Amino acid sequence: MSTDLRALAREIASELAARDRVATRGAPPEQQDRSTPSHVYHHSVPDRTNSPQSSIAPPGVRFVRSDARMADFIDHTLLKAEATRADIDKLCEEAREHRFAAVCVNGVWVATCARALTGTDVQVATVVGFPLGASAPDAKAQETAQAVRDGATEIDMVAAIGQVKSGDWNAVADDIAAVVRAASGRLVKVIIESAVLTPVEIIKVCAIAREMGAHYVKTSTGFHAAGGATAEAVALMRMVVGDALGVKASGGVRDCEAALRMIANGATRIGTSSGVSMAKCLGPGPLPLNDLLSLATGHVGTCHTCSSGGSSVPGSY
Amino acid sequence: MSTDLRALAREIASELAARDRVATRGAPPEQQDRSTPSHVYHHSVPDRTNSPQSSIAPPGVRFVRSDARMADFIDHTLLKAEATRADIDKLCEEAREHRFAAVCVNGVWVATCARALTGTDVQVATVVGFPLGASAPDAKAQETAQAVRDGATEIDMVAAIGQVKSGDWNAVADDIAAVVRAASGRLVKVIIESAVLTPVEIIKVCAIAREMGAHYVKTSTGFHAAGGATAEAVALMRMVVGDALGVKASGGVRDCEAALRMIANGATRIGTSSGVSMAKCLGPGPLPLNDLLSLATGHVGTCHTCSSGGSSVPGSY
Repeated sequence: MSTDLRALAREIASELAARDRVATRGAPPEQQDRSTPSHVYHHSVPDRTNSPQSSIAPPGVRFVRSDARMADFIDHTLLKAEATRADIDKLCEEAREHRFAAVCVNGVWVATCARALTGTDVQVATVVGFPLGASAPDAKAQETAQAVRDGATEIDMVAAIGQVKSGDWNAVADDIAAVVRAASGRLVKVIIESAVLTPVEIIKVCAIAREMGAHYVKTSTGFHAAGGATAEAVALMRMVVGDALGVKASGGVRDCEAALRMIANGATRIGTSSGVSMAKCLGPGPLPLNDLLSLATGHVGTCHTCSSGGSSVPGSY
Repeated sequence: MSTDLRALAREIASELAARDRVATRGAPPEQQDRSTPSHVYHHSVPDRTNSPQSSIAPPGVRFVRSDARMADFIDHTLLKAEATRADIDKLCEEAREHRFAAVCVNGVWVATCARALTGTDVQVATVVGFPLGASAPDAKAQETAQAVRDGATEIDMVAAIGQVKSGDWNAVADDIAAVVRAASGRLVKVIIESAVLTPVEIIKVCAIAREMGAHYVKTSTGFHAAGGATAEAVALMRMVVGDALGVKASGGVRDCEAALRMIANGATRIGTSSGVSMAKCLGPGPLPLNDLLSLATGHVGTCHTCSSGGSSVPGSY
């Protein structure tokens, strides 16, 4: 990652933070006219002042700063096409037992999971426009609304990757805004498929996700041949969204050490199908952006239950 | 492929044909009560008696029996997430130039393609529930309706693979029926992801697709790690659906010889991103089921513009 990109990311984060301060004095998003397509990005900032979350933690994050259970970071994930009802039942049992942050499943299983997890704190996350991000915006919005009706509490949508690559930023923004509206206040994570984006595209789409009122940016679907999460991408995404949004690392994060590398670089959720093997691991809670940037040696060394000598300096692996 | 499976497929095809004869004397599908979930398979058989197609050819197939242009078989396909507007424009230009059967694109590009292909015979096919087949049935129906509004004339839906693997056949049937209804008479192809199914599962899901009023069964999404089309799967699918439906081979069909192997085993469409390189190839038109079964030596040798010594005996590769 070049110094120029770091500077650019800081500049964007700073500019967005300034805009946020203006926006919170303006009309709330639901009073804005959404009936016409945007020609500039919509600007909706969710009210997080009364959030039950820790003041340090981004929305959707339950844990406190030090010695957090790794399980609190984990979206226990099963998205393959051929997953059966028995597989989904097992996923929910494991999530309940280990008190994972969420299960993450395809839409057809949302109602099943919502029933199975009633009375627990485990969230039901589902995917929208997954994994290509190339369904029509209205179809994504309808898929989101259906998921909410079925009991989903978190929506992991795939951004319009083709529009990102085409430079059609208004389409990218409208697509995210439509899902945020359809989610009716549920947590929205925007998957950017970072492995196929340039650093500048990563910065732009994360900035747009933030402006459109999403609550998280997420690295990867886990289904793209180009690969999944990297610590570099996580660090860049965290720099753009600052402390206002969560960052989810997903795709290829298969052990505690890899998860801790992601967390050390700014991730506040980990999407993985290997959650059970990580459940006993203790890691550091999320750190504010400035702490992350100054803590170049990372947090891996503070893990209480696993040994790791790996560097967590962004860009060093 | 064992002899038992061949016998089973013939038996199923025969039983379905008998049921079709009964069904065509019953109420048309749109007069049936669709307000409650089915506990047995819905039975809707589209009226194909007034089809403009050749009496030999399944619906959606324009070519005649002998010396068909390979281009007439081809769904010119671009489904990767990062396809740009420029890529889609090029796809449509190529489809127009070579007079392919259809373009096959993600939902976000349907309106673009419909505009670009106005005044041509090239169909606009799009995918639904793609590539996992695991979105909620209502979401698939809404995605289909949106695609139709945007100008799609063919819908390539992914079956509920997880429900197939769970043995929940009523859910599989309802899912297909919902898309067929939402397609409002447009051609519906049901993608079964044959590489992850057992032969018995292939037979069952093809039989259900036929009963639910779909017009095609299709081997693969092209996105599953388990692989794409095989001649064995195509032959089995053709045996189940007889001459009533089309069979589309897709996923990994990258040259004329491979395409002809699929056609010799019963395919009437080829989904490929390599259509331009195949466009000059001439192949045999589709054959009725009985001809296919008796013609164990296949048709590859009859190709006028390519040389191939490959066997096309079903199950021999």
